[in-house]
Formats: sequence, C-alpha cells, structure tokens
Amino acid sequence: MYTDYDVIIIGSGVAGLAAGIYCARAGFETCIMEKGAMGGEMMSRQLIENYPGFGEGIQGPELASAMMEQASSFGVEMESGEVTRIVDKGNYKIVETEDETYTCKGVIVATGCHPRLLNVPGEKELANKGVYYCATCDGAISAGKPVFVAGAGDSGLTEALLLEKLGCKVTVVEFMEKPKASQIMLDRAEETGNIEVLCNYQTNKILGTDWVEGVEIQDRATGEVKTLDVQGGYIRIGNIPNTAFLKDTLELLPNGQVPVDMNLKTAIDGIYAAGDIRQNSVQQIVTGAGDGATAAMNLGRYINTLA
Amino acid sequence: MYTDYDVIIIGSGVAGLAAGIYCARAGFETCIMEKGAMGGEMMSRQLIENYPGFGEGIQGPELASAMMEQASSFGVEMESGEVTRIVDKGNYKIVETEDETYTCKGVIVATGCHPRLLNVPGEKELANKGVYYCATCDGAISAGKPVFVAGAGDSGLTEALLLEKLGCKVTVVEFMEKPKASQIMLDRAEETGNIEVLCNYQTNKILGTDWVEGVEIQDRATGEVKTLDVQGGYIRIGNIPNTAFLKDTLELLPNGQVPVDMNLKTAIDGIYAAGDIRQNSVQQIVTGAGDGATAAMNLGRYINTLA
Repeated sequence: MYTDYDVIIIGSGVAGLAAGIYCARAGFETCIMEKGAMGGEMMSRQLIENYPGFGEGIQGPELASAMMEQASSFGVEMESGEVTRIVDKGNYKIVETEDETYTCKGVIVATGCHPRLLNVPGEKELANKGVYYCATCDGAISAGKPVFVAGAGDSGLTEALLLEKLGCKVTVVEFMEKPKASQIMLDRAEETGNIEVLCNYQTNKILGTDWVEGVEIQDRATGEVKTLDVQGGYIRIGNIPNTAFLKDTLELLPNGQVPVDMNLKTAIDGIYAAGDIRQNSVQQIVTGAGDGATAAMNLGRYINTLA
Repeated sequence: MYTDYDVIIIGSGVAGLAAGIYCARAGFETCIMEKGAMGGEMMSRQLIENYPGFGEGIQGPELASAMMEQASSFGVEMESGEVTRIVDKGNYKIVETEDETYTCKGVIVATGCHPRLLNVPGEKELANKGVYYCATCDGAISAGKPVFVAGAGDSGLTEALLLEKLGCKVTVVEFMEKPKASQIMLDRAEETGNIEVLCNYQTNKILGTDWVEGVEIQDRATGEVKTLDVQGGYIRIGNIPNTAFLKDTLELLPNGQVPVDMNLKTAIDGIYAAGDIRQNSVQQIVTGAGDGATAAMNLGRYINTLA
C-alpha cells in the first residue's frame, strides 16, 4: 500500500543517523524527524576518543556532520517536527507531530535521553546562572572559577577534566559510596591535582541569588553538613529517556527505556528502538551507531515481507 | 587474585578492537589474541560506505589500522596465537593456545566467521585456480573475464559490482527464489548492464582441470541444466562462525553462533561474545564495533564486582 515514507526515524542523533544510512542504502524512502537541532548528543561533545575508527579522536560536531553527509548522500530526508504519537495500524503506522501526520511502513525510535535533575532547592532558580548540565556546552562561563560537578560517572569525570582544563578547581560530589567512572578517568582526574572526588555525599541545596555562590552537601555516613565555596555547578547524574510520547503506544520500563528483543524490535511489529533509549543500552556513541544499523536491517527484513 | 591479564579478547577484527579500546580505556590490562593477520574481515574490504562517521567512505585496511592505533594508544597488548580452549574457573579463566596458557578475569570472544563452501565437485580442486571467496582480495586475477558469483546477498552483489568494474561480465547464481541483497545493490547491478542475476538455480559443479572453464547450473523449477561459460567463480553464500574451539566450554546454536543475553554475556559469567559470531548479529562492521563496546562495558562491571 502507499505510505508517505517506507521508514520514519524519530531522532537525529547517532542511532537515528546510522539507521538512516542503512535504511536509505537499502533502497527505502526514509525520513528522519528531529524536534530540535540535528546531531543529538554528539553536538555537545568535544573530543570523542572511543569511537572506533578515529585513531586520534574526533570532535563531536565533526562526527555528527560526517554522518549527516553520509545519510544525505544515500537520500535520507530530514523533517523538522516533534513527534507526539505513533499509531500502529498493522501493516502501516501513523506518525503524528504537532502540525502534521505522516504514514509509513516502519518506525525506528531513536530519541535519546535528557539529563536527570538533582531536584534540590536552587537548581531551577539558578539554572543558566551558574547551574548547567553540559560543561562542553557551557563550561567557558566558569573558566578559572571553583565549581562542583554532581555525579562521578564517566560523564561527570569528563566534565570535571574539561572544567579543570579551563582553570577551574573542581569538586566532584557523588551520592553513592564509590565512583562509577572508569579507572582511567579517575586516574587522570587525580593527576591534575585540581579535582577532588567526594563520595557518599548528598547535595542538599545550591546557594546563591543571582548566581551560584556555593553548594551545601552532607556526608551520608556521619550526617555532617558542609558548604563548598563554588561559583558554578554542572549536573551529570544520569539520563532520562525521551520516551514520554510513546506511553499510549508501548509499555515502557520503570526507568523509561523501551523494552526490545535481540533484534531491537519493540512489542509492536514494525516499530524498533535504537540507542540510549532502549533496554540494556550501555549508552555509548558507537553502540548507538550499531543499534541504528541493527534496527534498520531487521526493520528492512520486516518491510520486505509486507505485501 | 593475580591473573596474567584482566581481559583477554580473542580475535582482532572490528569487534575485538572496539572491545580492546573500551577495556583498556577503562583501566583493564587487556590482551588481544589473534591467530592470523590483525584486522579481521576489514583487511579484505575495499571502500566501506556504511560505517557511520566517514562521509565519503573509508578503505577497510585504513579503518582497521585506525582502530589498531587507537587500541594501542590506550595500552592494549597484542599476542599472536590460536586459542584452542577456554576453561572457566569461576572468578578467573584459563585461555589456552597451542603453545601457551594465560589466566585472566574475563574473556570476550570475537573470532568472526569464515566463508561457507558450495560443496560441489570442482570447488576444492579449483580453489585458487579460478575459485575464490573474496573478490576484493582476488578479483584482479579475473579482470576482463566472464565470471560467476554464487550468492545474491549484499556480499555477493558487492563482489559482482567489484568484478564488473574490473571488466568482468558477471552472472550471479542464487539458490533461493529471490535475492537477499538490498535494493540499492540490485539497482546498481542492473544499471551496469553487465551483471545478470539468476535466481532459483542450483550450482551442480565447477568445470575445468587446471583452471575454471565453466559452471554447471540447474533451474530448480524446471530441472533444466545449463553451462555458463566462465573463467572464474566467487563464492559468497554465507559465513560460518569460528566457534569450534568453544565446544567444550559453551553450548552453541545449530548455526555455530554463540547464545548471549542482551548484555552479550554467554551462559558463563565473565565470558562475553561480540560481533558476527553472536546470536542475532546482523554482521555489519558497525554492529561489530557496537558489540565490542557493549561486551567490554558489561564485562568491566562484572570484573569490578570480583574480590
């Protein structure tokens, strides 16, 4: 039957672009729908060292633009719009945005994640007044000043190292007893002499009126409260999948991720999920790329079975 | 406890190299064991168009060498040797080669596949005398001559296009009723005017004494037998996982692939499988890369739980 596209991919980060490359190259009329800027998480990354194939690393936006070029060269179309709902009609799907309605034979959801909030007093009030969620994007504003980073995972440590390079003295505050970051990141942080990692500390509130002037933290073992004298805070305590728009279509996991099988198929035939939003994702750029290809190839096989 | 390495990765193709990059960058003492030449399948590929991040494509060996450089820069060691057995000892593993025995805390198996044979008269006798399994590697020898390609999947069509560029008239012989190749490949083949795809044909035998002089094929619908006047044959009818050495350690699927869960863990704690050999792999370079990262991150979490 006639549909506007064979495949609609929701999201233009690495998983969406990889899926686009594979779908279009397989001869499917393919459209990527993006609600914001193209390129997803890659656009806010600086040197990416662990995407296999770039011996000396590659800047995030440069990697994104190479993938966009590749997708375009195979004929992927790009549409601007926020998808509000997917309706399953069996052998076709309806993808609704605020303004438009499209039909297609298959959908790949690759909408990525957004940062988890600390949800403490001062966080919202001082957002963009010293409180940020991406040092790569907003670190320059804190150059040379003392700052804290909430979260001692790899992304928290990456932020800390970046801020330290900008001349910041950095305190990393971690709620859990141990940092989740990889050893190489922790070693690098220690080598700088300007990054301190405090584990088992709760962040109580961010202080300041017009700008961040400090952060109050509490030792979870002893209950002792202290104030760090900082002028900025960078929150990296996790990612929340951008999957709320799927709630009428698919059952989600408690953490918001999309359940999938080994082929990245969701509970509905013809709807696949790829990248950071899918169950068990390790949320790396290269795993998003692999997911895009896996979802695209399996969806292609499904579409080829349709009448 | 002390082990020779934290992680041993078996195989140095894209999945093994990606796993190496991730393991070493996470601070694990990591060794890649390779029985042959480094780089795996990438080494026999020419222009790779669908690895996300290279807008104009990249040559296989160039991609492999970038990944090797990356793995080395993070401290991955490379050992030459064919692994004959993995022995699970609970919180450590023994990896045996013909000459040596190594201990480690975790293993990632990334040994890739080798080509399936047609198993017809003449195939073995004429191997390297007109019969080949990789046009990228051996196509030049057939330049300007009529050839057949067995198998109309993407890899068969890729071979056909490459041979056509070398001035060959190509007949692709497919056993199934329909080609499995993606439409873009079939379209490109048709556009050349020099590639014919014959479906639903069985290959009976390859003819010739000192060199391929023809191939006898049979229409599976009518039973009609005919001989194609060719001087070379390229067999691309599937891949067999290089997993025989695992038979005492793990139960394998009937097709030789390794059963894994969503985290790419095998049935044994601390042993993971990545790339073309694992259950449900779509066997692309980028999915191998994603697998390597996924296996490495999940194995890292496991090792960090060991005493």
